[in-house]
Amino acid sequence: MALLETISDPSQIRDLDVTQLAQLCTELRQYIIACCAENPGHIGASLGAVEIAVAVHKVFDTPHDKVVWDVGHQAYAHKILTGRREAFKQNRKYHGISGFPRRAESPYDAFGTGHSSTSISAALGMAVAAQLEGKHEHVVAVIGDGAMSGGLAFEGLNNAGSLNADLLVILNDNQISIDKNIGALHNYLLKVTTDQRYNRLKKSIWDRLGAGRVRAWLQKQVKNTKRSLMRADGEALSLFDSLGFRYFGPIDGNDIASLTFMLERLRDIPGPKLLHAVTTKGKGYAPAEEEQTIWHAPGTFDVETGRRTGKKSDIAKFQEVFGTTLLELARKDSRIVGITPAMATGCSMNIMQAEMPERVFDVGIAESHAVTFSAGLAAEGMLPFCNIYSSFSQRAYDNMIHDVALQNLKVILCLDRGGLVGEDGATHHGAFDLAAFRPVPNLTVCAPLDEAELRDLMYSATQPGYGPTVIRYPRGCGRGTPWRDRTFTYIEPGTAVKLHEGSGIALLSIGAIGTKGVEAVARASREQGIEVLHFDMRFLKPIDTAALEEACRKASRIITLEDGVRTGGLYSAVSEFVAARGLGCTVIPLGIPDRFVEQGTPAELYAECGYDADSVYQMILKQKN
Amino acid sequence: MALLETISDPSQIRDLDVTQLAQLCTELRQYIIACCAENPGHIGASLGAVEIAVAVHKVFDTPHDKVVWDVGHQAYAHKILTGRREAFKQNRKYHGISGFPRRAESPYDAFGTGHSSTSISAALGMAVAAQLEGKHEHVVAVIGDGAMSGGLAFEGLNNAGSLNADLLVILNDNQISIDKNIGALHNYLLKVTTDQRYNRLKKSIWDRLGAGRVRAWLQKQVKNTKRSLMRADGEALSLFDSLGFRYFGPIDGNDIASLTFMLERLRDIPGPKLLHAVTTKGKGYAPAEEEQTIWHAPGTFDVETGRRTGKKSDIAKFQEVFGTTLLELARKDSRIVGITPAMATGCSMNIMQAEMPERVFDVGIAESHAVTFSAGLAAEGMLPFCNIYSSFSQRAYDNMIHDVALQNLKVILCLDRGGLVGEDGATHHGAFDLAAFRPVPNLTVCAPLDEAELRDLMYSATQPGYGPTVIRYPRGCGRGTPWRDRTFTYIEPGTAVKLHEGSGIALLSIGAIGTKGVEAVARASREQGIEVLHFDMRFLKPIDTAALEEACRKASRIITLEDGVRTGGLYSAVSEFVAARGLGCTVIPLGIPDRFVEQGTPAELYAECGYDADSVYQMILKQKN
Repeated sequence: MALLETISDPSQIRDLDVTQLAQLCTELRQYIIACCAENPGHIGASLGAVEIAVAVHKVFDTPHDKVVWDVGHQAYAHKILTGRREAFKQNRKYHGISGFPRRAESPYDAFGTGHSSTSISAALGMAVAAQLEGKHEHVVAVIGDGAMSGGLAFEGLNNAGSLNADLLVILNDNQISIDKNIGALHNYLLKVTTDQRYNRLKKSIWDRLGAGRVRAWLQKQVKNTKRSLMRADGEALSLFDSLGFRYFGPIDGNDIASLTFMLERLRDIPGPKLLHAVTTKGKGYAPAEEEQTIWHAPGTFDVETGRRTGKKSDIAKFQEVFGTTLLELARKDSRIVGITPAMATGCSMNIMQAEMPERVFDVGIAESHAVTFSAGLAAEGMLPFCNIYSSFSQRAYDNMIHDVALQNLKVILCLDRGGLVGEDGATHHGAFDLAAFRPVPNLTVCAPLDEAELRDLMYSATQPGYGPTVIRYPRGCGRGTPWRDRTFTYIEPGTAVKLHEGSGIALLSIGAIGTKGVEAVARASREQGIEVLHFDMRFLKPIDTAALEEACRKASRIITLEDGVRTGGLYSAVSEFVAARGLGCTVIPLGIPDRFVEQGTPAELYAECGYDADSVYQMILKQKN
Repeated sequence: MALLETISDPSQIRDLDVTQLAQLCTELRQYIIACCAENPGHIGASLGAVEIAVAVHKVFDTPHDKVVWDVGHQAYAHKILTGRREAFKQNRKYHGISGFPRRAESPYDAFGTGHSSTSISAALGMAVAAQLEGKHEHVVAVIGDGAMSGGLAFEGLNNAGSLNADLLVILNDNQISIDKNIGALHNYLLKVTTDQRYNRLKKSIWDRLGAGRVRAWLQKQVKNTKRSLMRADGEALSLFDSLGFRYFGPIDGNDIASLTFMLERLRDIPGPKLLHAVTTKGKGYAPAEEEQTIWHAPGTFDVETGRRTGKKSDIAKFQEVFGTTLLELARKDSRIVGITPAMATGCSMNIMQAEMPERVFDVGIAESHAVTFSAGLAAEGMLPFCNIYSSFSQRAYDNMIHDVALQNLKVILCLDRGGLVGEDGATHHGAFDLAAFRPVPNLTVCAPLDEAELRDLMYSATQPGYGPTVIRYPRGCGRGTPWRDRTFTYIEPGTAVKLHEGSGIALLSIGAIGTKGVEAVARASREQGIEVLHFDMRFLKPIDTAALEEACRKASRIITLEDGVRTGGLYSAVSEFVAARGLGCTVIPLGIPDRFVEQGTPAELYAECGYDADSVYQMILKQKN
């Protein structure tokens, strides 16, 4: 790490020659691999983007020039180069640095990016601002081919291509998002990069530059502003040209010399331009190059062998319960189809996909489309299970209202990663879903306590009596309740379950966080003889008014417990019930407070937000005194 | 109307010849013009799409075949042809038919479409469902060029282009959305349609078909499946081809003969295909063709003269207050920029645009991008006012959370058309904004009572003390409060205004609907001697806790009044306040109930939902007894 250790600031990169830059890339890779082996992270994307990070900081005058990293988990090299080499050891840890660019963290993080496809819009805003302010400033957006399939990226391109702002988009094309990439844009890019011309070029390695062939070609590329590689071919490569961008490429995005050469020349060309850089996800680490989906975020591993060392829990994850149950239901009901926006593996829909690929639709990173497409399927009598990570479902809010709920089309929206997700932090917590969907008419909104309840809710939602339904559950393991191969039990909408009898104090919980409540209630009984009335509400909408009546009758202090924002969800529903009746009970909210919560382990974050089992217990005691 | 009167069902169109079809189009136009002159509607788009509607029902076996009309206000001819000729006289009226396709209204309305850009996704879902079910069914999406710029449309294209579903997209290209269309895609389509080849073709009118020239060309087009018009040219027209669609066109979309000829031949070509039909917005009615923005939805008019006969109120609309105030503020503060997703005229940002066009950005129909672009501008020190219709802001929910609030970037989001909008009905009511934005940290959420308060809130939001801010106000006129050229007054965040002193009963209102409260409170005082404590809350977040304390102290019955869903917004906030303190006050919600509300005049809908002035008055009396 001889060279890397001397870099505390990108200005120190600017004097390095190509050989040194290549060395720096090698050291960065080793460092990322070594750190991620012990402290898990998104290694695959970041290994692929090492050269882009080095080249961008070499060529552009950061932080004066602005670089926006789309889905910032590709930006580890960027973080390490911008004064966070040591801090990177605490990547994604509680009170450590964020796994994504974050404006509050560094002036080099021009824009925070946890969700996909935002970079072009944000960078365009910056470029336009610089223009209006008369600042001479370059703005670069680095965006993956997966993120490019998101509608927001297209909206950004469409707007940028008609404004005359100086914006450079680097398309980091690694042909994969998390799962195998799909969609027409992907096919198009694949066609471009498998073109013979590009492949001939790729063989002309940089070493031959002395002969001037590659250099001459590149220079011609840049000079000939009306043509780019494929257009010279006669065959159309005008997707980006059609949208008003000047297209350059494709080039080898893992070749630091080509990259810096191109960026130096593109830097001062005015207007919107796009450089197509082809990279390899996991580049430079053989296991990661070979199994790219697994190595997107592999957990801890042994660097030498590539063996993943993370302990596998005996308890199944909610994701596995979802995936297994979906397949089981789909086997019995031919109307059932699965829809996922690029998260087939993450949400375990790949289990159904393996057995019935024709009934699973990975639509790419396109949450809005996923829901409206599902509504179209439902309109024709299919029964779609659409699975979206809670935090990303914020992008499908209008689709759920306008296309699903308003038409009362039976789409079953499964929100994975509801509540605090842990290490991915503020951008990824599923905090707002319960509050956002509760006011929407026609929806049933529920959250299971455990594996068995998830299974039964999924089954029940397919039955008459349920319309469009939102089922929300967290990332990770349940509590170990037996669930495999069990007979399905129909759950009536709007029915709660009493978990513990008691009086004086009531605990109303929704979702898997209720297990913290179960612990706390048991402890209060055991250690203090306090018997708390505890309901697993299961349904936020319709809510079980009989359970609420019983709680208000038996208890004067009602604690609500939800793994979501305190306002708008269960706390609000219970408060409304109490206030509408003038009951005078006191309602105490446990949930995510009114601020954004950073990264950490779920346990750390629950404790910070005051709703781990101990906090619930303490809150029970407090009500007694 | 000799022919039109015989059509009660599209099957009756199928036997007509080209001359009769042309006659039918003429009659449809006359009928639409006559009806809309008396009963206002979206005349411009629907006049342009008459031939498409006739051709689609002529060629396809509706309702077995499915047609999805994007932003359904282009679909009046479709409604009239599908059994709703008489009902069309009650278009957009209370208990009349919806101004948009609506599944509950007719089997011919395959999918409800009030919001833009949904048609491709929905139609793809239907096409895939038909495929899975083994049904032989054609699916058609008709989408405008404006709607095509929405990210959702791109997501739909991207997915459709890689599946092999039989989907026909008819691009209804009238070169305008509501305001002049913009964006790179628009420029691209313009380039295509101004191409000499297309213009030569257009001159070859259908009458010459006997000579076989046009027919031969069209047949070649259809037969030569690998090429479409422009590609044959050597010049690339591969935007849609790149995305996996077979592109056909452009053709004259107001020429019924060309349209039916093409559709008959495209109908049975498998896979995704796009027909580019160029139409004229307002076609066939000279005033509407000439001033397309005004005639998008002109109100009542005199058919002979084209004079618009709607009464102009003496009282300014909130829209005018917004537009005028924005310009005033922008004159004083060079950081201020305006961003609108294709609603410059609707929200009156055109007032600022006229004086400082370089500081106003109409980004096209792209709400998500509008907000993230604004965040980018704010990140570089600009002060963006982004104006979005409340109901469309549901598409920017994630952008407000992830790009604006999380980074605490000072974007001022002005939500026009908050609350019940009236005749546009269920798809357009701004019902969910207050509930959806209240749980988001860092946001200030407010709604002015009247014109002066809107003005002062806009000013205040630009001042220190305000971070990212949501200002929400309704469609239409205020209450006539003087506002022009008045000195700006800074309003402290989280401060309510006491409008009437009283006790026993309190009324807490937010936004312009509070004027109904003012009426009701005055009447209760006048007629019954009941003095109701009335606060104009102004801020939903932060909420004025001193006002709430006073209300709870003085009153045991608290009525909340908001022009939004009852759950999640002001009612919830007040209920939480009461329940958290165990106060035992009774809180009574007035607002939109938990169901979707259809169209009607605002007065009719307020009455239906129980919060017009009389309903508020009755609710006050009820609390007394």
